[in-house]
Amino acid sequence: MSFEITKELIQKIESDVENGHDNAVTEVLRDLHPADIAEVLDDLSTTTLSYVYRLLDKEIAADVLVELEEDLREHLMKSLTSKEIAEEVIDRVNSDDAADMIAELPTEKKEEVIAHLEDQDQASDIIDLLNYDDDTAGALMAKELMKVNVNWTVANCIREMRKQAADVDNIYTIYVVDNHDVLLGRLSLRKLLFHASSTRALVSDIYEIDQQLITVQPDVEEEDVAKMMEKYDLVSIPVVNDAGVLLGRITIDDVVDVIVEEAEKDYQLASGIAEDVESKDQIWTLTRARLPWLLIGLAGGLAGAKVIGIFDIEENPMMALFIPLIAAMGGNVGVQSAAIVVQGLANKSLRNEKLSAKLLKEFGVGALNGIICSIILLGASYLLGFGTALCFTVSIALFAVIIFAALFGTFIPLALDKYDIDPALATGPFITTANDIVGLIIYFTVAQFVAANFDPSFLALLP
Amino acid sequence: MSFEITKELIQKIESDVENGHDNAVTEVLRDLHPADIAEVLDDLSTTTLSYVYRLLDKEIAADVLVELEEDLREHLMKSLTSKEIAEEVIDRVNSDDAADMIAELPTEKKEEVIAHLEDQDQASDIIDLLNYDDDTAGALMAKELMKVNVNWTVANCIREMRKQAADVDNIYTIYVVDNHDVLLGRLSLRKLLFHASSTRALVSDIYEIDQQLITVQPDVEEEDVAKMMEKYDLVSIPVVNDAGVLLGRITIDDVVDVIVEEAEKDYQLASGIAEDVESKDQIWTLTRARLPWLLIGLAGGLAGAKVIGIFDIEENPMMALFIPLIAAMGGNVGVQSAAIVVQGLANKSLRNEKLSAKLLKEFGVGALNGIICSIILLGASYLLGFGTALCFTVSIALFAVIIFAALFGTFIPLALDKYDIDPALATGPFITTANDIVGLIIYFTVAQFVAANFDPSFLALLP
Repeated sequence: MSFEITKELIQKIESDVENGHDNAVTEVLRDLHPADIAEVLDDLSTTTLSYVYRLLDKEIAADVLVELEEDLREHLMKSLTSKEIAEEVIDRVNSDDAADMIAELPTEKKEEVIAHLEDQDQASDIIDLLNYDDDTAGALMAKELMKVNVNWTVANCIREMRKQAADVDNIYTIYVVDNHDVLLGRLSLRKLLFHASSTRALVSDIYEIDQQLITVQPDVEEEDVAKMMEKYDLVSIPVVNDAGVLLGRITIDDVVDVIVEEAEKDYQLASGIAEDVESKDQIWTLTRARLPWLLIGLAGGLAGAKVIGIFDIEENPMMALFIPLIAAMGGNVGVQSAAIVVQGLANKSLRNEKLSAKLLKEFGVGALNGIICSIILLGASYLLGFGTALCFTVSIALFAVIIFAALFGTFIPLALDKYDIDPALATGPFITTANDIVGLIIYFTVAQFVAANFDPSFLALLP
Repeated sequence: MSFEITKELIQKIESDVENGHDNAVTEVLRDLHPADIAEVLDDLSTTTLSYVYRLLDKEIAADVLVELEEDLREHLMKSLTSKEIAEEVIDRVNSDDAADMIAELPTEKKEEVIAHLEDQDQASDIIDLLNYDDDTAGALMAKELMKVNVNWTVANCIREMRKQAADVDNIYTIYVVDNHDVLLGRLSLRKLLFHASSTRALVSDIYEIDQQLITVQPDVEEEDVAKMMEKYDLVSIPVVNDAGVLLGRITIDDVVDVIVEEAEKDYQLASGIAEDVESKDQIWTLTRARLPWLLIGLAGGLAGAKVIGIFDIEENPMMALFIPLIAAMGGNVGVQSAAIVVQGLANKSLRNEKLSAKLLKEFGVGALNGIICSIILLGASYLLGFGTALCFTVSIALFAVIIFAALFGTFIPLALDKYDIDPALATGPFITTANDIVGLIIYFTVAQFVAANFDPSFLALLP
């Protein structure tokens, strides 16, 4: 059932456009969902893209524009006049999408488009939505919803709902408000159908007053809206102001996008990518997004060189053999610990545990992993023919490094979170770089200790 | 509006239970949403948990059980008889949740519970759902939905819908089927309301035949279902068999859970965690989930030691200084490249690019990052007082390592994907370990080249 774009389809459209076969193009796109057309446009060359967009049915074109990637949408919007944008795009999409698209325009064009809107209610709805901060419930919500007055009769209610339904794509919930638009509860479709034929029933007799109707205020952050909708399994959530007045509603499809973006952002941070990039972006954009973390790694590497220099590597050159092992293990353990904390913070499962309890547990995990890895390392390195003293040194250092990295990886994201910095920043290159340096210090300190106390000539034991 | 659990609340419940103040506990929980009660239970001690669960209203208790973490649910289910599970839990929840809960039971109890179900339709629905593979559309779908026959009158339709609505929590969509239950299209609520008062209208006159009604078959993987619903902004999707017969529907709330789990899994893989764990898990579970990646790191570290040994570190001990830098940079670049590919594969934006084009682009990004980092390193290491020849050696090696890591990080996830292995496996410790080893080989090879061709005594230049 799912539509798959093929290279052949893209080539066919490109060549049809080149040869002026407009009908062939229209034919191919006619039965596709706007989201699929957006994907097709995404794969076309920039010139073909603009041409094909003009061939689309006006009603479909607006929906396609909503689904398109932001950069392509901006490209297409540039080729439209303010009047075209107002009448052919904004007028045909929901208020939340309309506000998002207008927000992307340059200031001057923004005002022109709003001035061109014929429906004054629509214009004021959009201006209202533009006032909310990005990434808040207010910016996510749409003004379109089904709303009935508590004092109406069911017959009146059905009449009004027919009018409202023209603007609302998906109904989900029928909200009940008082004369001041204060949200009182919901009207279930079942009750409405049950009383549809009775003309005397009142909304006030049949609506549901929820003790715990879940609402959000417009200044709530979009991530928190997503968590609420996820937790309570909601498809839509009403947005109300301080006085309880119904301002709009947020639907799950917009929230799914927030969830996906959030997950991608955390993943990118953990992988050492600073901006929201994708593989299709320009080489320079991709380079820029990755450079900050590489520079951190570079600085860490130079600091590591200084540390090794201090510890007189010239006299104990065999110490160098296990530098990569110590650095890699510290980094791996640190990233693991940080990732578990970051996820615990994200889904709030960490909320009621004390810092000391968390660190103690992580100490336990670190100690267990440390013992297992150290014993394996001791056996393996001995079997591989490295000197006994070196094997012991590396194994003891590894144990200490793993415990340090586990505690450090747990502590840093918790500390960042306390100061309202995204804890995901702590994962990836940051943790690995810090662990590299501390790991080297631990490694060489253990070596000095072993050399001083047990076997001053242990390096001679090497094969 | 959102409910927040406090330590005080948990302590109050624990002490109320201890002192036998059942009413106080019931009072506190009475107005809470089942999802909130589940969170409270999650924070209670095991004995208190079972006691509090028994205090809950039966209707609420079933919903709470659905929301609970799997391990706690299993713990509570163990204390219930098969008859209690059938009558007090399964009978009160939707078929998809019912099937999921029964699937978690031991085989014997499974059959007992099903035998205790009084409603034969319900029992056969559940048996049907149990047959689908985990992680497929069939396992996600529920049998409860609103379904009308195309030949009915609108009046008949509303009468039937009232009955059906008793079982369906959220209606979302009214499906239209023929006499053989083959899905034909949807009936919009707007049209239904418009014709509600007319008794003569037929469903066949007013329903919508979608050219492109989006459906899934029961064997489609749940990840693909999630991607479809995300792409097409759907709140529910009908599941049909080969013959087009309507089997059930999948609702967005279940799909949101799939999306979140999928994102968490990728994040954990990138962070070197093998099983789905969270910070609350037992120390041994956490250790076991992390150990496989640490063992990979360990093996890599030993291989690295062998590589350094081959290259005669004793004669050039100063080479050791920059081992951490080379290893860290290779690892970072590799992880970055792999992460971008993994995300591109996940959201299909990579689908129509050729392998050669992708590698060429990554070569560009690698070359640009490599040049920038190498020049900075050259300057910085020189200013920090390291010998000229060493500075040049490290900078040249870094450039080569970055380009290799970028290409390797791009190629591995693409190759895994080709053989239907989760490309996210390629990120994290796997890539960093491989890059460590190759990075070292490149570093020492460059050093040998520099020593042989330009400055055989370059190590003497060190401060």
